[in-house]
This record gives sequence, structure tokens and C-alpha cells, in this order.
Amino acid sequence: MDRVITLITDFGTTDGYVGAIKGVILGIAPQARLVDVSHAIDHGRLRQASFVLESILPFYPAGTIHLVVVDPGVGSSRRPIVVASGGALLVGPDNGAFEPVYGRGDDFRCWEIAEKKYQLAEVSRSFHGRDIFAPAAAYLALGIEPQMFGPPVEDPVRQTGARKKIISHDGIVGSVIHADHFGNLITDITAQEIGMLAASRRKLAVSLCGKTIQGVSEYYAQAKKGKLLALIGSTGRLEVAANLDSALETLGGSALDAEVTITKV
Amino acid sequence: MDRVITLITDFGTTDGYVGAIKGVILGIAPQARLVDVSHAIDHGRLRQASFVLESILPFYPAGTIHLVVVDPGVGSSRRPIVVASGGALLVGPDNGAFEPVYGRGDDFRCWEIAEKKYQLAEVSRSFHGRDIFAPAAAYLALGIEPQMFGPPVEDPVRQTGARKKIISHDGIVGSVIHADHFGNLITDITAQEIGMLAASRRKLAVSLCGKTIQGVSEYYAQAKKGKLLALIGSTGRLEVAANLDSALETLGGSALDAEVTITKV
Amino acid sequence: MDRVITLITDFGTTDGYVGAIKGVILGIAPQARLVDVSHAIDHGRLRQASFVLESILPFYPAGTIHLVVVDPGVGSSRRPIVVASGGALLVGPDNGAFEPVYGRGDDFRCWEIAEKKYQLAEVSRSFHGRDIFAPAAAYLALGIEPQMFGPPVEDPVRQTGARKKIISHDGIVGSVIHADHFGNLITDITAQEIGMLAASRRKLAVSLCGKTIQGVSEYYAQAKKGKLLALIGSTGRLEVAANLDSALETLGGSALDAEVTITKV
Repeated sequence: MDRVITLITDFGTTDGYVGAIKGVILGIAPQARLVDVSHAIDHGRLRQASFVLESILPFYPAGTIHLVVVDPGVGSSRRPIVVASGGALLVGPDNGAFEPVYGRGDDFRCWEIAEKKYQLAEVSRSFHGRDIFAPAAAYLALGIEPQMFGPPVEDPVRQTGARKKIISHDGIVGSVIHADHFGNLITDITAQEIGMLAASRRKLAVSLCGKTIQGVSEYYAQAKKGKLLALIGSTGRLEVAANLDSALETLGGSALDAEVTITKV
Repeated sequence: MDRVITLITDFGTTDGYVGAIKGVILGIAPQARLVDVSHAIDHGRLRQASFVLESILPFYPAGTIHLVVVDPGVGSSRRPIVVASGGALLVGPDNGAFEPVYGRGDDFRCWEIAEKKYQLAEVSRSFHGRDIFAPAAAYLALGIEPQMFGPPVEDPVRQTGARKKIISHDGIVGSVIHADHFGNLITDITAQEIGMLAASRRKLAVSLCGKTIQGVSEYYAQAKKGKLLALIGSTGRLEVAANLDSALETLGGSALDAEVTITKV
Repeated sequence: MDRVITLITDFGTTDGYVGAIKGVILGIAPQARLVDVSHAIDHGRLRQASFVLESILPFYPAGTIHLVVVDPGVGSSRRPIVVASGGALLVGPDNGAFEPVYGRGDDFRCWEIAEKKYQLAEVSRSFHGRDIFAPAAAYLALGIEPQMFGPPVEDPVRQTGARKKIISHDGIVGSVIHADHFGNLITDITAQEIGMLAASRRKLAVSLCGKTIQGVSEYYAQAKKGKLLALIGSTGRLEVAANLDSALETLGGSALDAEVTITKV
């Protein structure tokens, strides 16, 4: 069976970085199926990489290898790792990008990529995506077990959120964690948490950046063009959007890290 | 034979939307060959999606499945559909994006995607690309016939142009319908129509935005660097370009919807 | 064995140009493995295309076909060519984009693509990427030998650098040749040349745009956030970067073509 290798990076596509990674993989594992997910992660923005990873993980078949290379610390002492969890294998630097896997409470196991024979013969100090992570993903696709790469890692680096979520009987105070391509603002408040707060989504109000939105809608076109609305987005999180417009532009750049409150009315 | 599935969306690649669609397809149809065409359609701009679809359709092998998800009405009552025409299968929302197929006068057949067993178990209200269209494309790739998805649709939504084209003995009045990556302005006037107007392309003048271009050239480098020229572009349509420069920038943003006149001189 | 075809173009992905090329290839060679390297080369910027090609070439398996279509002269008299070198096959216009292959001193052979039966039936004057180069790449993937396409070319067009590099006992005067996605400035000065200049990289100074950087570092994170540093980049060339920031923005747009001096201190 041809193994799927997905790619999430901040390398962009104006250079040959992604092309070199793909070449290394196909040189080692010619039958691997390469899937571009994103090369447009903002430079070094781990939280964005984690969010993208989280939003695709449940939809890939068992055995998929996810290569996540957002690596501002390349060449320093940060470890290269492989993580196995729920049928997926994750490859990348140990910098917290795999938080969606660590944080969901499932079992996971982690190993350092130390064994030189699974790396390129010459390893640069500035491009481990090509020299260490691409070969590791390719050898995993060939069926090499992750424990062959190196010793277990018991304490992978965790990613800490900007602000702690507060859940009470009357409401939830959370944060915007991501602005998507359309300017939709995605929060850390989940559909489950909202379900426990109120039976009817219409009897809720969502506030951020000094604006209040009445009710949680079902879909974008329920608001008039350009009007703000709140809804449960496709990743099961509370989202603030503007129909056929950008909520991020409507609310301004500070919305990117804004506090979001949802309360009963 | 591994079926080809092409992807045209307005999802961009800074998020996991496209990655989730690809994962769903590969989970159902592991042998499908995914081909990225464009994820850079402007938000909700159906005319652009249609133009991109039109420009690739003739070049794909029979049996290709084209997934076109530009879906501002997601979650509302607009229907999900499959269209079969000329050996190709098209999957997406019923919002007029498939106009190039409806408009070319060929036979086409259309069905609603209603059968739940060909959708994800949980269907969100905001991401049918992942939950309805990706599984439909994957099941088509497995050989499921489109009539298995639901009832026939006799009246798919049509896309209407901004302005009606006027063809006379002396000239043609048409419109710019697309500005491409290079700033070339592509019109709704075809090479055939121009051929019927005059035997020699040198005895024609093209006017738009208050500028007149003498003659219809053969290729870009026939004009000096930065100079406007008219030519028959690669999709068989009259195109206004600037050699090694952007005609859109040269003429300004109003050129995007400009009236274009071609007359005998 | 399924042949790999990589794609380097300046077509962007807002249109159907790249999609049409992929369709033509898959129509002729259904088993070819298409690999997107870059469609974001600046319009007509051959030097960038060459740099991207150079940075991926060593990492692809033997037999890989590289399609490089940056073609401002499309439709004029410039020749379409195939080049064979070191196990790789290159397809594109004869405009100097293949300089990395010509310049490395290896053997290479070159043929004109003249034979009509390996082109689309109708060849436009403005899109040879689709009508000539895509079919040529596909027929190569099917095993057609490059000499079947047309006569040998003895004098392919060479690309000349902006400025001649000066190497002396005390230092090297070179140029910035590329700014990458991160704003790192890559020069034409190689690690080998620096090795011959001084045994210790710490006893060197790098100057450009009126700034001087002491020492050549090992990796980005050795400098403080936002601070300029010099290092040997992943393609074996001297690079000027700013840790977690853009050296191009720090130094201004003139850095793109700047003279770079490295001297002993």
C-alpha cells in the first residue's frame, strides 16, 4: 500500500525548499504519495501550524505520515522527533507544533531522530527539513518502525496558549486562536462547551473587540453581506465571521489575539 | 485505472481546508490522483472559477473528476450536484460555476447529491467541500455512477454575464471577463468571431478604457516592453496584454469589467 | 517505474495555466508523478528559475524530468529544447534558465523540440508550456528518447551574471543573486571559496549595503531576534539573514542586487 505523506511548512513556494524536500522523499520512497497541505504558514508561527495540523488529522487514513516543518530553531539544540498517535505518524522539530496530539489526551509515543543512517549523508545546519525530516518521513513510508530512529522522548516540548480559558455557569471567556484565509476568527471555545452552557444557541451572545453578536448562527449566509455573525465552524469551534467579507478586517488586527466572551442572554 | 480528481477552490492554502478535502478523498479512494489546479480563486468569485474550469477542461483525459468548490452559500438551501458531460464529471455546489459546460451546447446531465451514505457521517453547515463534495468525488473515482447520488436535476443554476455581446458586420462589442496572473485581460470575444469579421488581423483595432490598439498580434514579444497589444490568447479568446508588464496595472482596475470593442479599420 | 515530472513556472495559480499543463501530461502519460516545485517565480525572472532549479536538482532520483517554463519570449523564434545531464532531463524554452546545468562543467546534451508528433495538434503562439513543453515532458516520461524530438543544439543560450566575482588572497567580492521567501539574501560566494580564504569562519567579515557583519555563523538562531548574521546556507552558498526576520526588509530593496564583500579580519 502506498503511504501518504502530507506536508505542512512555512517555506513558501518561491524557492526550491519544498521541491528539495519532495525530491529527497521520492529518492528514498518512490511510491510515497505526497500531499501538499500548506507551505504558507507564517514564518515560525507554531500556533498556526498546530491549528492546520489539528484541522486535517481526523480526515487522513491510518498510517498517514504528517511532515510538519516550521523550524525557527533549526541548527540549534532542539531535537528532531517522530510521534506516533492514533494511527498517524508525525515528523518534525520538537518545538510544540504537535500540541494537538499531545493535548487531546490520547496515547502518544515519541522518539528522537538520532540514527545517522536515516538522514542524508551531509546534514546542513540550516535545512533539516531536507536533510533530516524528509528522509525520516520517507523511511517511515518504507515501513521502518519509529523506534529505529533513536531513543524514546518522554518530555516533548509543549505549546502553551496565550491565555487561560475560563468556564463558568454563566459563560465562557476564551480567545481567538486563528484567522483563516477568509478572515474568519476561530476561537478556543468548543461546540461541546457551548452545548453545556445553553440548550438553545439563539439565547447566547458573543463579544469581542467591543462588539456583541446576538445568537450563534448555523451558516454564513444567515447574516447579511458584510455583517458579523458567530457560528460553530467546521473544526467544531466557535468562530466569528462576516458573510462574504473578512471579520478580521472588520474588527481590525487586534482581533487576532482578542479575548472572546460567550454569555447567556 | 487510477482516476484523476482536479481541485479548484477559493480556500487558499494558509489553513487546513484543502488538506482536509484531500484526506477525505484519500481515505475513501486511496488510488485517486489528486491534481491541484487552483486554491487561489477570489473569495466567492464564481466567474473566475468558471473561467479556470473552462481553460483546463479540454486538456484532461476522459473520466477525470473536477471538484469545484467556490461556495459562498454553503449551509443554505443551494443543492450539491454532480454533472456529467463529454466524459468529464463535475462535483460542487449548484451555483453556476459549471456554466462553461452548460453553455457550450453539448449534452450534459445533472444529479443532486442527496444520498447520505456517500457523505461523511457528520455533515457540518459550513464546510461541504470536506463533508459532501470530497466524498462524492472519491466515490465517483471508485466507479459509483452519478445517478446513485440522488435525483436528476433539470434546472441547474445558470451564470449570467455582466453585459450582452453585440456582433455586427463592422465590429464586435464585448467585455473583459478575467484578468490573469500576469495582468493580461481576457475577453468574451473569440478567435472565430474575429475570423468572421476580417480576413487579416492587421486590419482591426481594439479599444478599451479610452485606449485603442492597432492590429491583433501573434505573440507577446511583438510589442515593445511595457507596450499594450491585442492577441488571441491560449484559450482562443481576444486578450489585451502588455509585453513583460501588466495590462491591468497599465489600464487601471476599471479594466476588470471594461467594455471592449473590435472594429475594422 | 513511474517517472517524476517536476514543475517550475511563473504562471501562478489564480488561472488554469498550470492545470492545463498537468492535464496534457496526464492525458499522454497517465502514470507520471507530477511534483509542484514552484509556480511563483516572478514574471519572466530567469535567474530566480535557475536558482530554484539548482537548489532541487541534486535531490531528485535519476530519470526525473524537470519542466521549467518561464517563457517571456513565447511565440517568437526562441527554440524549445530538451537537455540531458547527469541522469536528469530538462524541458523548456532555450533562454538560459538551464544555466545551472551548463555552468557546472558536467557533460550535457541538448536537442531542439521540433517533431510535431510530440506536440499538441494545435500549437498556440502564447502558451507553449501547454502545447509543446508539457507533451514533450510526458513523452519523455513514456520513455521516448530526447534525440527523437529534433536535431542536436550545440549552442544553447547562456545566462550571464550581473557582475563578475573577484577572488583574491585577502577576500572575495561577489553579489546577492536571490532573496528567498524569508528575506534571506543568497550570494554567489560558495562555502569552498570561503574555506580557501580562511580556516576559521570567525575571522571573517561580510559587508553589503554599508553594513558589516563579523564572523560567519553556523545557524540562524545564533543571532538575536532581528539581528543580521552571515552563514553558509543550505545550498552551500554564503547567505545574509536576520534571525526570525527579513534581511531584505532590514537592508532595503537595493540589497537584491547588492555587491557583497567577504574579507579576513
